[in-house]
This record gives sequence, C-alpha cells and structure tokens, in this order.
Amino acid sequence: MTLDPVLARIDADLPDAVERLKHLLRIPSISTDPAYKDHCQAAADWLVADLQSIGFEATKRETPGHPMVMAHNGGDGTHVLFYGHYDVQPVDPLELWDNDPFDPQVEDTPKGKVIRGRGTADDKGQLMTFVEACRAWKAVHGRLPANISMFFEGEEESGSPSLIPFMKENSAELKADIALISDTSLYDDNTPSILTQLRGLLGEELTITGPSRDLHSGSYGGIAMNPARVLAKIIASLHDNEGRVTVPGFYDGVPELSNEMAAAWDDLKFDHKAFLGEVGLSEPAGEIGRRPLEMIWSRPTCEVNGMSSGYTGDGFKTVLPAIATAKISFRLVGTQDPHTIRENFRKMVTDMIPADCAVSWKDHGASPASQMTTTHPAFEQARQALSDEWPNAAAFIGAGGSIPIAGYFKEILDMDTMLIGFGKDDDGLHSPNEKFDLSSFHKGMRSWARILNAMTS
Amino acid sequence: MTLDPVLARIDADLPDAVERLKHLLRIPSISTDPAYKDHCQAAADWLVADLQSIGFEATKRETPGHPMVMAHNGGDGTHVLFYGHYDVQPVDPLELWDNDPFDPQVEDTPKGKVIRGRGTADDKGQLMTFVEACRAWKAVHGRLPANISMFFEGEEESGSPSLIPFMKENSAELKADIALISDTSLYDDNTPSILTQLRGLLGEELTITGPSRDLHSGSYGGIAMNPARVLAKIIASLHDNEGRVTVPGFYDGVPELSNEMAAAWDDLKFDHKAFLGEVGLSEPAGEIGRRPLEMIWSRPTCEVNGMSSGYTGDGFKTVLPAIATAKISFRLVGTQDPHTIRENFRKMVTDMIPADCAVSWKDHGASPASQMTTTHPAFEQARQALSDEWPNAAAFIGAGGSIPIAGYFKEILDMDTMLIGFGKDDDGLHSPNEKFDLSSFHKGMRSWARILNAMTS
Repeated sequence: MTLDPVLARIDADLPDAVERLKHLLRIPSISTDPAYKDHCQAAADWLVADLQSIGFEATKRETPGHPMVMAHNGGDGTHVLFYGHYDVQPVDPLELWDNDPFDPQVEDTPKGKVIRGRGTADDKGQLMTFVEACRAWKAVHGRLPANISMFFEGEEESGSPSLIPFMKENSAELKADIALISDTSLYDDNTPSILTQLRGLLGEELTITGPSRDLHSGSYGGIAMNPARVLAKIIASLHDNEGRVTVPGFYDGVPELSNEMAAAWDDLKFDHKAFLGEVGLSEPAGEIGRRPLEMIWSRPTCEVNGMSSGYTGDGFKTVLPAIATAKISFRLVGTQDPHTIRENFRKMVTDMIPADCAVSWKDHGASPASQMTTTHPAFEQARQALSDEWPNAAAFIGAGGSIPIAGYFKEILDMDTMLIGFGKDDDGLHSPNEKFDLSSFHKGMRSWARILNAMTS
Repeated sequence: MTLDPVLARIDADLPDAVERLKHLLRIPSISTDPAYKDHCQAAADWLVADLQSIGFEATKRETPGHPMVMAHNGGDGTHVLFYGHYDVQPVDPLELWDNDPFDPQVEDTPKGKVIRGRGTADDKGQLMTFVEACRAWKAVHGRLPANISMFFEGEEESGSPSLIPFMKENSAELKADIALISDTSLYDDNTPSILTQLRGLLGEELTITGPSRDLHSGSYGGIAMNPARVLAKIIASLHDNEGRVTVPGFYDGVPELSNEMAAAWDDLKFDHKAFLGEVGLSEPAGEIGRRPLEMIWSRPTCEVNGMSSGYTGDGFKTVLPAIATAKISFRLVGTQDPHTIRENFRKMVTDMIPADCAVSWKDHGASPASQMTTTHPAFEQARQALSDEWPNAAAFIGAGGSIPIAGYFKEILDMDTMLIGFGKDDDGLHSPNEKFDLSSFHKGMRSWARILNAMTS
C-alpha cells in the first residue's frame, strides 16, 4: 500500500476533520465534576459511533466511573494500541475565557490558524489526529496498514480511578506489540519528539481544623489558634532556600542526569527565556544550580495547586477561620516511590500541627515516573517517519507532565509506549483559552499516517 | 416618674417584643454584599416606622452606601445618643446553619431559651433592648425620662465607609452629653460590664500575581514561580516563635498593663479554659508569657481572615496558580497608629516579593484603639443601675473587638461613650447558628430602663 495518496486524502479532508473534532469538543466531558457525568457518557458514545463508521469494532465499556472506549480493526502485521482520553479539565475561572470553552471555533492568529476551546490540545484534538489518519488509510486503501486497537479513557484528568482495574481485567484484549499515545507536545514548532521519560505524580489534599467553628477575630484574635496560619507555615516549610523540597527522604531515587543526556539536551538549545516569557515570567524559579530543562524534565517538585481558608468573597469579614485546606502535588522522577513520599510528607506535616489543631487527608493518586526502553524497533521507525514529515529531525526528550498510563502499560502489560504529541507550549493546557494549532492537527494526522506506514513496511 | 411599673411593663410585653425583633431579623441586611442593598434599605425603613410608632421623630438619611437612621424625642434632662447597627455579617458557609439564618426562631436549649438567626446578638437584638426600654417608658409614663436620640447605621460590618462623612456633616444633630452603645457582651452570665477600652482594627487585602495565567503544573512545575508559595511564606513570616507580630515598629505605642488594671483583671478570675473550651480549643495560642485576658483585651494581633489560590473545588486540578490572595487584619491597642502600621506592613511584604511576582493592595479600613474617660458621672450611674439588675456588680473591662465609632464619637463630637452589652461568649457572632439569649434580651431591656432612670434622677 502506498503512502502518498493517504497523505493527499488527509490534506483534502481537513475541513471535514475539523468539523468532526468540533462535534467532540462541544461535549463538556469534565471528569472531575460529577455534574458532567452524562456528558462523559456522550463523549464516549460519539467516539464509538465514529470508530464504527470507519470499520472498527468499537464498544463502550462501563466502569464504576466514566466509561472506556475499546476498538479493534483485526488487521494484519504489527499490533499497535493507541491510547487517548476524551475527558477534559474544568474551565474555571470562566470569566477569563474570551469565548464559550465548549463552542470551539477556528481563529486566525498572528502565528496561524488555531482551534480554540477546552480539550482542543488536551486531548481530543490529539486523539483525533490518529483516528483521522486511520480514516484516510481506510478511505484510500479499503483497509488499515496494521493491526490497530484503540483505547480511550474518560478519567485522565481526575486521577484515573478505574484504569488499573480495567487494564487488569482486560489485559489480554489490551496487550499489543507497542502502545502509542498522543498527549504531549512538539519539541518546538519545527521539531517533533518522542518522549522517553515522564515525571510521576503524587496528589495530596490536607485539611487543618482548629476551633470548632469560625470565630469573631475581635473576640478570639490573639488567644485562639488560627488554622490558616498553621497551613501557611507548613507550605512555607516545604522548600528550603535553595529551592529543594524538604520532605525527608524526598531525593531518594532521584538520578543525576547522565553526561550523554545532558549533552543531548544542551544540543536542543532550550530557550527558557522565551518559554517563561510566554507566560509573563523571566527567571527559572526552581532548584538553584539546575538547568532549566532539568527543572521541568528530570527534577522532582512540590507545588501548591490550591489553598483556601476563611472568607474569600467580596469585602471583608473579620473571621478567625475554623478550617484551612490545600491541594499539594509532587512531580516525581527516577525511582522515587510515591507511597514512601506520601508517608513521609504526611508525617512531616503531622509533626508540625500545634495543640488544638488536627489534620486530615485526601489521597488524589500516586504514580511513579516512567522511563521508556527505546530498543524496540518501532522507536527508530517512528523517529524516521516523523523526521520525513517535519523540517527538523525528531528528538528523544523528557517531559514534566505525568501520563501514568505509560507506566501501567509497562507494569501491567509489559508493553513499551511511544509518546508522540503535536501540542505547543502556548496551547494553554488546563488554562483559559486552550487552543490547538490547525497545523498541529493537520501535520499530526500526516505524521501518524507515516508512522503506520513505517511500521508496516 | 417611677421605675417599677416600667420594669413590670417590660416583663409583660416580652412576647410582643420578641415578635418585633423577629420582624427585623427576617430582613437579610448583609451590608458587605451589594446583592443585599435593597434589604439594607428595608431594615432602615422598618426601624424608622417602629421609632415613629413610639413617638420619635425618625428619618432615614441616604448616604453613598447604606442609609442611616436618625431619631429624636426632644425630651428634657440629660441628652443621650444611642448608637446601633442594623446590618449583619454574611451567612456563609450556609451549610453549617441548622436552620435558615433569616427565619429566626425561639429555641429551648440546655442553658435556657435563645433567639437563633443572623444578627440576633450582633446587633439587631441588642439594638432593640434600648428601643424596647423606651417603648415601655413611653407606654407607662407617656414620655421618656431623658432627651434621647438614636443613630443607627447599616455599614458597621463592612467598614463604615459613610460614617465619618455623615458624622462630620451632622455633628450638631449628633452631639449629646454621652453616647450609649449596646454591641458587646456581659462579662459573664451574672456580671454586667461597661467597656472602657477597645482594640482598633486595620484591614488589608493583598493579591500576589505571578504567571500571566494559570499554568499546567506538569509543564511548568519546578521552573515557574508559584504565587501560592510566596503568599504562604509571607503569612508564615508575620509572627515570630514567641507569637509576636514581626511587622517593623508594630509595638510602638503598645502600653504595658498598669498594676492596678492587672490586679482588677486578675480579680475577674477569667476562666480561659472554659472560654476556649466553648469553641473546641484548650490552650491560649497568643504571645508567650501574656495573661489570657491581655491576649484578647490589651495586646495587638495579626490574623489571617481569608486566603485563596488556585483550584479549590472538588477533586484535583494540577494547576500552578497565577494569583494568590489573602485578607489580613490587625487588632490595635494603646496609641498604635494604623496608618504607620499599614505602611510598614506593605513595605515588609513588598520586600519579600520575588522576581516575576507583584503585589497589589485593597484597603479595608483603619481605626485606632479607644480608651474611655470614665470620669463622666454617667459611668458611675450606669454601673450602679446595672448592679441593681444583675446578680453581680458591674465591672469596667476591656474588649478585643473593634467598635470604631466609639473613637469617632470622641474625636469628631468630643463625646464619651458607654459600651454596655448583653451578649454572651457563645453567641456565635459572625458564625453559623448565631443566637441571642432570651434572658439577655429581657434583662437588657430592664437594664436600659434602670440606666435611663439613674441618669434622670
């Protein structure tokens, strides 16, 4: 089967592909908020119907949470499992969006056309690059060039509680020669990449209670313990003056960057001034003495994702709050053990709780970092195929975000994963006005067509 | 005119007085939230009508904010100005109320009957003790025993922005021999009190901005400055290990307690274990080495009243927030200057702001502490009258809360103020399930009848 007519078909079909993506984007499949449960179902249904329309045997599979979508074409050759997620992040603060996040539009911008809306880059737009590549192969050649399975979940943005049980129960059906994921970014506008290392994630929520009710700060201020002060002290103690995390044992299992990798990363000439400038910043604020790329790819972190206490509305309320709460996450690397870190973090915090206060916990997931084995021939085939599509050769890189499923594929299914994404740093993942470049969408489809071709020949 | 029939009339009229109070309590006059503007007007209208019904020349007086209520009876003798406020605090968190905060009910409790609802103790119930005492005098004797004016505002819970301009513009009308305020508490269930010192209040809101938008903590965690961490560090630095406030110059003008006052306060045998035990606490958490009563009456404080950053909803969002904000207040004593402290606080915080972050400010009011001159004969007359009504003799005490108007009466009108209140420590001011004891309401009315009598004879 020849590649060129498939690429031509992708080019010609782009307007219709955009319309299909818009359909999927209009479904507000926010997984973390129970109010959007039915919309998550609707997004799964839409995918099942679309995959069936291009010849896949596709089914929606219920879980205790949001459903999975599974699809198989039963073809010959290398068996690949493509994974994506149809759920999206919440959209607050809604007032910072220029348009309805669930009414996607193609916009002209100084950097080219973009599709704007929640989930465009993370992950509906990327997921559809692969689906559209399959559609084009099928349209041109009547069949696909490989044995292709697809696996979409709807809980990626809310800790994937159903994922591991589902993978264990359906391991025979899920096992393939290699997994493919498109939920990451290009290295830069002209340089595609294959991710070979990903940080893990530990999510914790702590609630500090003090007085049995909110108090008048006039009557009690000065004599009553204030949980907001206790929380601030805890958060302030999580980093030392060098920017290192102070949780005991935190750096156990954190590897130093190899000389080879350090040199390869230096070759990428990462422009941290531009990267930070995009979001109104100028200086790397991480551990003193580390490369900017290390800070986001190969060093672990501790971040405050949310905190709240007392009166936060308009005006002023002289209340001494009864409760203070924070959501805190750790990005993990190497062989850091999330469970040990959770234990040490909770002990460290508990030891700081003064008389008359107590702390309680909510667990928001724990996954270790992933390190890919790049010896599978598919890695070199994909690198070559990507290099054919894009101006610059593809690079093996690291990433700061967590895609725990790559680790699960290895651990549960003994399967390597190639993470190949087409997002850009200014896509605004998890932020207001998220977008996906139309060129990313288009060249993403062409890239997958080439990769499937390379893995078949 | 004789006192006994007035007291008898108060006793007989109690059920109707409770019904009148409930009418006023049903009006949700939350002054800090613009959505309740019309309800503040309605509360003022209700008071005007009620005062007119007992012979006062009463008027509603518009301001740029919520209206004032002014009333005069034009009687003979000592001219007293009674001040109260008809506005109330917000009711959030609403889910912690056992009943609708604006559908007040009389409840039986193990400690006796109470009226439950927002504003019962602070200040509608207390305000009505004075109005009801006047109503009884008028009903029994056809006229009042003194030249009585009343002055009610509707912005006490939101910084009183219209108060000073109104007082300056209407100083001739407001000036009296002495001011009376009922917005404070009994010393204990059996011991009434007259407040002779009150802490001042400085309210500040700071907003720390970092990245130009919320970021994905995977992509940016470790390299981008997190404003929530900056805020936590600032709040954690506001107190030293001895519990003292670290703002430079903060203790300038803070007097040491005199030996006489220290002895008088020790005589009160303040049971701090019981005071704290009511709200689920056990240990004084203020400056090391200070008496518990000092901590709440005569020592200055710094409190976090609210803080917020990032995602605070259900579930988890791996966001690196663009903004962190806090509401912080200082209680002031002696001759501490709120304006100097504001300036020093802002400088201290600004000096802690790292590269790529900025801080902005909202001013939520500034009033110095008040120290009453107790040489006016009304103080001794009132002490005696209160001692006649209650089991124990009345005490001159201090208070932790701020009633800035007492300072303004002195400063603008050169008028002393007697602060005589009937609240209890477990009233839940500013908290869910606020209440006012029916005995406080009843004996409060009787106390004012006695005080008016004492000032006339």
